[in-house]
Amino acid sequence: MELNVYLAGHIHGEWRKELKEKAKAMNLSVNFFSPMEEHDRSDYIGEEIIGEQPTPLQRDAVSASINNFRTQLLLEKSDAVIALFGDKYKQWNTAMDASAAISKNKPLILIRPQSLHHPLKELENKAQVTVETIDQALQVLSYVFEN
Amino acid sequence: MELNVYLAGHIHGEWRKELKEKAKAMNLSVNFFSPMEEHDRSDYIGEEIIGEQPTPLQRDAVSASINNFRTQLLLEKSDAVIALFGDKYKQWNTAMDASAAISKNKPLILIRPQSLHHPLKELENKAQVTVETIDQALQVLSYVFEN
Amino acid sequence: MELNVYLAGHIHGEWRKELKEKAKAMNLSVNFFSPMEEHDRSDYIGEEIIGEQPTPLQRDAVSASINNFRTQLLLEKSDAVIALFGDKYKQWNTAMDASAAISKNKPLILIRPQSLHHPLKELENKAQVTVETIDQALQVLSYVFEN
Amino acid sequence: MELNVYLAGHIHGEWRKELKEKAKAMNLSVNFFSPMEEHDRSDYIGEEIIGEQPTPLQRDAVSASINNFRTQLLLEKSDAVIALFGDKYKQWNTAMDASAAISKNKPLILIRPQSLHHPLKELENKAQVTVETIDQALQVLSYVFEN
Amino acid sequence: MELNVYLAGHIHGEWRKELKEKAKAMNLSVNFFSPMEEHDRSDYIGEEIIGEQPTPLQRDAVSASINNFRTQLLLEKSDAVIALFGDKYKQWNTAMDASAAISKNKPLILIRPQSLHHPLKELENKAQVTVETIDQALQVLSYVFEN
Amino acid sequence: MELNVYLAGHIHGEWRKELKEKAKAMNLSVNFFSPMEEHDRSDYIGEEIIGEQPTPLQRDAVSASINNFRTQLLLEKSDAVIALFGDKYKQWNTAMDASAAISKNKPLILIRPQSLHHPLKELENKAQVTVETIDQALQVLSYVFEN
Amino acid sequence: MELNVYLAGHIHGEWRKELKEKAKAMNLSVNFFSPMEEHDRSDYIGEEIIGEQPTPLQRDAVSASINNFRTQLLLEKSDAVIALFGDKYKQWNTAMDASAAISKNKPLILIRPQSLHHPLKELENKAQVTVETIDQALQVLSYVFEN
Amino acid sequence: MELNVYLAGHIHGEWRKELKEKAKAMNLSVNFFSPMEEHDRSDYIGEEIIGEQPTPLQRDAVSASINNFRTQLLLEKSDAVIALFGDKYKQWNTAMDASAAISKNKPLILIRPQSLHHPLKELENKAQVTVETIDQALQVLSYVFEN
Repeated sequence: MELNVYLAGHIHGEWRKELKEKAKAMNLSVNFFSPMEEHDRSDYIGEEIIGEQPTPLQRDAVSASINNFRTQLLLEKSDAVIALFGDKYKQWNTAMDASAAISKNKPLILIRPQSLHHPLKELENKAQVTVETIDQALQVLSYVFEN
Repeated sequence: MELNVYLAGHIHGEWRKELKEKAKAMNLSVNFFSPMEEHDRSDYIGEEIIGEQPTPLQRDAVSASINNFRTQLLLEKSDAVIALFGDKYKQWNTAMDASAAISKNKPLILIRPQSLHHPLKELENKAQVTVETIDQALQVLSYVFEN
Repeated sequence: MELNVYLAGHIHGEWRKELKEKAKAMNLSVNFFSPMEEHDRSDYIGEEIIGEQPTPLQRDAVSASINNFRTQLLLEKSDAVIALFGDKYKQWNTAMDASAAISKNKPLILIRPQSLHHPLKELENKAQVTVETIDQALQVLSYVFEN
Repeated sequence: MELNVYLAGHIHGEWRKELKEKAKAMNLSVNFFSPMEEHDRSDYIGEEIIGEQPTPLQRDAVSASINNFRTQLLLEKSDAVIALFGDKYKQWNTAMDASAAISKNKPLILIRPQSLHHPLKELENKAQVTVETIDQALQVLSYVFEN
Repeated sequence: MELNVYLAGHIHGEWRKELKEKAKAMNLSVNFFSPMEEHDRSDYIGEEIIGEQPTPLQRDAVSASINNFRTQLLLEKSDAVIALFGDKYKQWNTAMDASAAISKNKPLILIRPQSLHHPLKELENKAQVTVETIDQALQVLSYVFEN
Repeated sequence: MELNVYLAGHIHGEWRKELKEKAKAMNLSVNFFSPMEEHDRSDYIGEEIIGEQPTPLQRDAVSASINNFRTQLLLEKSDAVIALFGDKYKQWNTAMDASAAISKNKPLILIRPQSLHHPLKELENKAQVTVETIDQALQVLSYVFEN
Repeated sequence: MELNVYLAGHIHGEWRKELKEKAKAMNLSVNFFSPMEEHDRSDYIGEEIIGEQPTPLQRDAVSASINNFRTQLLLEKSDAVIALFGDKYKQWNTAMDASAAISKNKPLILIRPQSLHHPLKELENKAQVTVETIDQALQVLSYVFEN
Repeated sequence: MELNVYLAGHIHGEWRKELKEKAKAMNLSVNFFSPMEEHDRSDYIGEEIIGEQPTPLQRDAVSASINNFRTQLLLEKSDAVIALFGDKYKQWNTAMDASAAISKNKPLILIRPQSLHHPLKELENKAQVTVETIDQALQVLSYVFEN
């Protein structure tokens, strides 16, 4: 069995790289999908492809349309979703992707520091599993392969 | 024709009261549903019904389960959703509810100050309409009744 | 707003009568649906309508087909489901109805004595709210009407 | 053609091992998925991954969330489900999984001793096939490959 | 509670009139929907509305398109379906409508003489209830209103 | 029985007014929904509500978002859809709405002059009924109420 | 590209063998699924697996449950369905399977002699393509691979 | 990861050939599906397979049924859809296919010259991404594979 797992969440730091390396070390048979992680490329992909836009709002709008194209397609191909929330970024899009996963019956693992429990309590209630670290999320994935 | 519209968003201030009064003044035939707007009641409803919990996390968890019960039921009965984002609160649950509405094919009106355009760009892309004020959202609703 | 709520669970004792009377006393605008509560009628409805059956298995089979007809139809018309588990009966059909409600996006309130927590833990995890008493379940319903 | 079949049911004894060996002897091209069969691991997986919990209820709750993550993911990947009920355990979760399979249009084979016919009659009515032994269930699977 | 029930089946004789009169005598709160029962009108409705057709096949094709428009719309508005099979007619369209009802999660009552058991066995297996007479079908409907 | 029918198609001329008057003369119990028929209002509704836009493309974009909000909401509330194509306008949006109706299992009546048969052949194949005049479309609706 | 196609229809004669051989000769990359074609085995599979039944009706019932298990599973794995009707058999189950395919958005090719046009007109209207011979059905399949 | 992408749009000129060659040059791991691109074959496939038809309308009707069979099957197997509109053709079928893709949650890239912005504004609003050239569409696809 091979699983596809989408890694929703902010694109700062290298948390996805860390997660993938650890998964590899654990020999998990999982393909990880993710949003564009290069921050500038993600913000400017719209203008890069479609051309300069008249306003900053339009720049954001065309980039969002292409980033959502990518997310929708990859989410649809995934068996499960891991969504990570950190202290620094609001990441409403992560909550949006997590909720879309739930609506599509794709089980969700939520990673969040305990300090975010209160503002995330409704999403936590909808997630299938809530953990605090990348290692714990991988242990949950690993558990699916056991027996 | 009578519409049901769910008002997702933070529960501080009196934006829903303002919106309902203005809708009434416009003679819109709309029933508005909303989350519990009394902040403390929303936070403590779990302990109030189920009893004292061993940890603050558990207190949040039981309250979230009851608040989500309410939201899921009312969202299902709604024809459209208005989601309001303001400067002060992270409101991941609003993004979650907005995304659930989209997945259920209920058209979404997003109200947000222009200053939030960048962090909300992906949700804005998924919303059917984005506006900046309550009055604009009501004009959109009103437009559905015209002809 | 008027809600339809299906009351899944065993048909011994008078828990539904108690629940309905309390809901009436609370002025909740809720129509309650339920399975046939007269035990013998539920067990013999198949033979009563279709005629004597060659074996006890067949008697059960025809009654089950008619009881499930009723449940499927009423569940489909419901906005939410309350499922009650007690100490005495296995009631796999209650777990089946509760799971069907979840699959249909109808939020579920689970009522169970704390002593049943371990064998019900997976269903509890899927339920939107878990409580221990009828009064608590009604408080959850009542909360949906507040504001 | 290769099929994926989820084996729902209690995790005592070695019925799944027996079933898999017999399927292998019959050269059935079937991948079997199952819940965690090591009983203690299943009960403590929550605390093992997430850490010690304040109450026995919480211990159960976190384990259930991870066990349901596994079940939801594997059920979604399955073409059919076999659910086994035995005399000793209540296994409401098996009824829940069986009902979820039915809602997802995955045909269900129910294995139960004839003595359980009465309490299982509604689930039996919803199952696509009801048999009494593992061998019979495998004959049904085998029949799909014939011609 | 008021139910909508679609009466699928052949349009010869007056079985629907008999059924409706008996339902009225039983005070069942049910609206019955049905196909066009005037046989010639059903066969020629296409030419009547759209005009003369070049071939008998085309005449059938345009009538079928209008009859299916009616059936699809009324089936969608129904809570349950009764499908009657008799000895004389092939009525593949009844089997088609019955199967559509099942796919839409609308519970099906099949009425057929016992003599048709063998050729109808697969549909019988999919139906929620199988009976032999109109009176039995009405007793099943009546049972939904009891308690 | 009361039906809701959405009238998709161009917003030039007064075809909807004619259709509604004829339906009234026929005493059909039908509520008709439609897009904004005042052409300029439809084109400028975006700027009217949201404010002046930097480019003609943006003006169109915001108006389209509000017109689609209206269409999605009204289509969802409809039991059937009538889509009219005329000689003069490309009306890709009508084809889009018609296809959305089909995907939502809402039966479609297509009105088109015979001269458009070739370019509309694929949509005609998906429509439940194709006619050439408003009167014919109303006869189809009327047929649903007969018996 | 490889397609899975289910061959619904009666199990007399050797029409499926003929179809498969012709498809092979045309080098079509198609896996064909079908019901059990050995007539007696299909009728007695229930008793063979589950044991002797008290009545002929019960014998049919258990066989139908196993045949439908097979059909449901194979239909779900198919990309398209071919349904053949001949002069001799009522084959309500073929109409049932064809209608299920349509509900699942699997395009249907109907093969029928022209003489059956009238009784099959409603199913013909729902089918995506209607032809008279096996060769024509294969030409339609072949067309999907062209370009 | 390998993607399937359906190329909706007119079948004049060689835009699909150009697109495929460019995709190959970019080493995109994408299988492209498309309608029959040989115009005459597309128009006459019905008569070729089913035989001469009594009227030009019937000729179109049988060809449309076979072309839609192909489209429905290939669209269902696709992960995303590219729809191209050009100046010359009405192509209501392209708008129909694009809308079907949206309803099936398959993200849509719309290619259109800027001059068509006004008549396409509603479809543009529903598309996930709108571009003006084939190269831009391929850049969007390519973006999904990056990181």
